[in-house]
Amino acid sequence: MAAAAPPPPPSPTPAVISEDLLPTGYNVFCRIRLATIVDVPHIHKLIHQMAVFERLTHLFSATESSLSSTLFPENSPPPFTSFTVFLLEVSQTPFPLIDQNYPNFSPIHKTVNLDLPITDPQAETFRSCGNDVVVAGFVLFFPNYSSFLAKPGFYIEDIFVRECYRRKGFGKMLLSAVAAQAAKMGYGRVEWVVLDWNVNAIKFYEEMGAQIMQEWRVCRLTGDALQAFANINI
Amino acid sequence: MAAAAPPPPPSPTPAVISEDLLPTGYNVFCRIRLATIVDVPHIHKLIHQMAVFERLTHLFSATESSLSSTLFPENSPPPFTSFTVFLLEVSQTPFPLIDQNYPNFSPIHKTVNLDLPITDPQAETFRSCGNDVVVAGFVLFFPNYSSFLAKPGFYIEDIFVRECYRRKGFGKMLLSAVAAQAAKMGYGRVEWVVLDWNVNAIKFYEEMGAQIMQEWRVCRLTGDALQAFANINI
Repeated sequence: MAAAAPPPPPSPTPAVISEDLLPTGYNVFCRIRLATIVDVPHIHKLIHQMAVFERLTHLFSATESSLSSTLFPENSPPPFTSFTVFLLEVSQTPFPLIDQNYPNFSPIHKTVNLDLPITDPQAETFRSCGNDVVVAGFVLFFPNYSSFLAKPGFYIEDIFVRECYRRKGFGKMLLSAVAAQAAKMGYGRVEWVVLDWNVNAIKFYEEMGAQIMQEWRVCRLTGDALQAFANINI
Repeated sequence: MAAAAPPPPPSPTPAVISEDLLPTGYNVFCRIRLATIVDVPHIHKLIHQMAVFERLTHLFSATESSLSSTLFPENSPPPFTSFTVFLLEVSQTPFPLIDQNYPNFSPIHKTVNLDLPITDPQAETFRSCGNDVVVAGFVLFFPNYSSFLAKPGFYIEDIFVRECYRRKGFGKMLLSAVAAQAAKMGYGRVEWVVLDWNVNAIKFYEEMGAQIMQEWRVCRLTGDALQAFANINI
């Protein structure tokens, strides 16, 4: 049996006011929705910022036009069956409801309360539809497949939050949105890669329930080495 | 200048017959074609053999029925736009032409000459359509996406050759078929994973032109950890 708790102290007039009477900080209204072709200019800038962050701009060759034709081709397949982008938008005012209800997805709304307001020096550049709405990040994913489970899953190619929005839970929100979608659809796995020296990211992913597959190495055939297969006699 | 070659020996009646008069060994006729739903029983057995080989049968839960509904759903998308299986078949007689010509793929035929015949103890189990045709292996792949390149690619989930057909170039044939398809379609990358201790496989992949991405680790969210996201309030 646990030791008895000490008796409560006498109850004077409170010296501090109750927390729910304090000013409530700054509300940030968030929405995660499916990107469409009109979002491509923002997606292009986000991918470029990611390349800068990863010091890989020498590998960056995407254009708005090539993104449009590959992410949103004519006769696009339904969301989640091919390359899919969730956009994270933020606003200082609540989002109106939008008409983007697919059979298995509705935009996700959440309100985050912060101690300090966010100053976004690129708010104009990332202005989205609607009053005061700004694109803060994105996640790009597509179906993968586990033959052992005989089930599809999702592979996350990119997850990115713009600098002034980091360390506020937005990355977790985007990753959770993909995981929730996979779970809702009865999928077997969500997978992505992380750099082995990025210990903060690894800790964060493990806390979300992910296993890090230590023994596996990704093999990549690209550029001239891939092109060499175009005309070989197999 | 190179040293002069010694004069040829006098030319008596040849003691051995010329090589092209020798018996030519054993021809194995090979075909790589797209799998269809009627191949599912073979695909199921191949995946199970792969699980046995990898000592991962505890993770194997695929059934013929679950493979059929996920690999070949009603209204299947065209090959290469979703989960795709190439089957490797072998025969002692040449393959007839089959009517499987998609806009960007025709079955691949090749003849391999071996010193010794292959004894296949499971030939009956893996008997395929046509006289004397046996399924020897498969590769399962699907589109992935590089946002830096703004191009699709292929991710190879499984590549497997049955035991009695190994070390004869069939694995290379299957991998080359996927790489050739990617190159032909203007895709940017082909990727897959390898276990870091499998030095023979790594050497083989590097010889084919692949880079091994040493710093990356695969993160996987699966099972209960994934299911926990089904009902969370993001």
